[in-house]
Amino acid sequence: MQIIDGKATAAQIKAEIKNEVEGILAAGGRAPHLAAVLVGHDGGSETYVKNKVLACEACGFRSTLLRFEDTITEAELLDVVAGLNADEAIDGFIVQLPLPAHIDEQKVTEAILPEKDVDGFHPVNVGRMSIGLPAFVSATPLGILTLLRRYNIETSGKKVAILGRSNIVGKPMASLMMQKQGGDSTVTVLHSHSANLAEECRRADIIIAAIGRPAFVTADMVKPGAVVIDVGTTRVPDATRPKGFRLQGDVDFDAVAPLCSAITPVPGGVGPMTICMLMLNTLQAYKQRA
Amino acid sequence: MQIIDGKATAAQIKAEIKNEVEGILAAGGRAPHLAAVLVGHDGGSETYVKNKVLACEACGFRSTLLRFEDTITEAELLDVVAGLNADEAIDGFIVQLPLPAHIDEQKVTEAILPEKDVDGFHPVNVGRMSIGLPAFVSATPLGILTLLRRYNIETSGKKVAILGRSNIVGKPMASLMMQKQGGDSTVTVLHSHSANLAEECRRADIIIAAIGRPAFVTADMVKPGAVVIDVGTTRVPDATRPKGFRLQGDVDFDAVAPLCSAITPVPGGVGPMTICMLMLNTLQAYKQRA
Repeated sequence: MQIIDGKATAAQIKAEIKNEVEGILAAGGRAPHLAAVLVGHDGGSETYVKNKVLACEACGFRSTLLRFEDTITEAELLDVVAGLNADEAIDGFIVQLPLPAHIDEQKVTEAILPEKDVDGFHPVNVGRMSIGLPAFVSATPLGILTLLRRYNIETSGKKVAILGRSNIVGKPMASLMMQKQGGDSTVTVLHSHSANLAEECRRADIIIAAIGRPAFVTADMVKPGAVVIDVGTTRVPDATRPKGFRLQGDVDFDAVAPLCSAITPVPGGVGPMTICMLMLNTLQAYKQRA
Repeated sequence: MQIIDGKATAAQIKAEIKNEVEGILAAGGRAPHLAAVLVGHDGGSETYVKNKVLACEACGFRSTLLRFEDTITEAELLDVVAGLNADEAIDGFIVQLPLPAHIDEQKVTEAILPEKDVDGFHPVNVGRMSIGLPAFVSATPLGILTLLRRYNIETSGKKVAILGRSNIVGKPMASLMMQKQGGDSTVTVLHSHSANLAEECRRADIIIAAIGRPAFVTADMVKPGAVVIDVGTTRVPDATRPKGFRLQGDVDFDAVAPLCSAITPVPGGVGPMTICMLMLNTLQAYKQRA
């Protein structure tokens, strides 16, 4: 059984990106530039954005953080987006979600120029990815496909069970895994209404769990030799930890891991890959604009 | 075993549309208006476009057919598209595919205003549909979901095997069937590289065959009581027919039908629904503009 080390893989990819950026700078080019828009003071969002800024530094990117109070109006935020769209110095940007309830997230997402939408949430990018055209692919699915490839896990023709049909993981993951230039896999998407969910999992060569239910995937749902990718990160109370909680994946790791040929841990599996893929998308946006 | 009669269902839906249009006209409104662009003289395209114009008449729509020789340049065709985008009198339009080799089909498709893209091929519509937002859904997947609904076939939680991963049928069909507001099904997408294709089919409650291989789905691949939807329409030589060929679906109908709880024939199943769904999309485009 192999542990798929997302932390190490992400570090390696960031080093590769940094190396490429140093080459660009040495040749007289400018550094890629990512901007992040943060509204309000949500603890999770603060951490994510901070880590994105740190990742930019690690990759040799320029980064700009635009902070606003959660009293910002939708119109004002749309103006910010328009400004970033027009700003020649910005290669790509993200608006950290969630946004306050008085702001229409979809409207903001669709206001981002698709060429600068490094989160890959704009319908144009979702659609282009779906039909197999070059597009920004959202970070989590791209990170998972990258992990599978870097660990030389065969996906072509394999049965992949995806648990969850969210817009940011399950659905784009399915798109990516089914297409020839992606995983080329036989994809089954499972969700809360699926009959035979456990049986479908048991028959899968690769399970990608993104259902947001702690330790949902148990040993009886996993075929011996399967590859298990755990996207879940639920905070569960744990008095033994300094913060009083621990991150629990969607997989009952201790029971499932011995069965697997390979498995991602939580934390340290898929998580570290996502920010790293954002960096890769930013580099791609930079190159497309250059 | 029930034959799912696409021809009768399509006729009924067209009558419903006509009824609605008559109501609009009686209230002093104008008729919905679909334009079709036809380049060259491909026999299949000529027939499709002719049938679309006839369907407009049946629904009480205005229709405009714009014909061009296959010597039209890409720039000229893009000008035509721009003109239709700007034309206030046109609610929706299609550019009949395929286009001559010197024209980039994707470029033309992406030039169509998404609000007028009643074929649902623009990435914005593909993406919006994928994430569950209101969008024009392409005709074949929408026609199949409509048939399932009109025949009261339960899809929620059911295992749906989709054979084929094309951009115009397999992939959007998968999107539509997996989401809660769509089929709410457990979707598996199968293709030429799938291991265990027959077994996956045998376990499916609903099989949607869109693989383009005549009589590919045989009796041993179908679970007794399954619902089988046949999207295939391959012309196979048949000396007993006046035209020297017949339309053959992807399903070995004679052997499979006795096993099914319901099945679509070819012709007369999915085929007639597609043009009818184009009419429905045009009506929707009209309403959104009104």
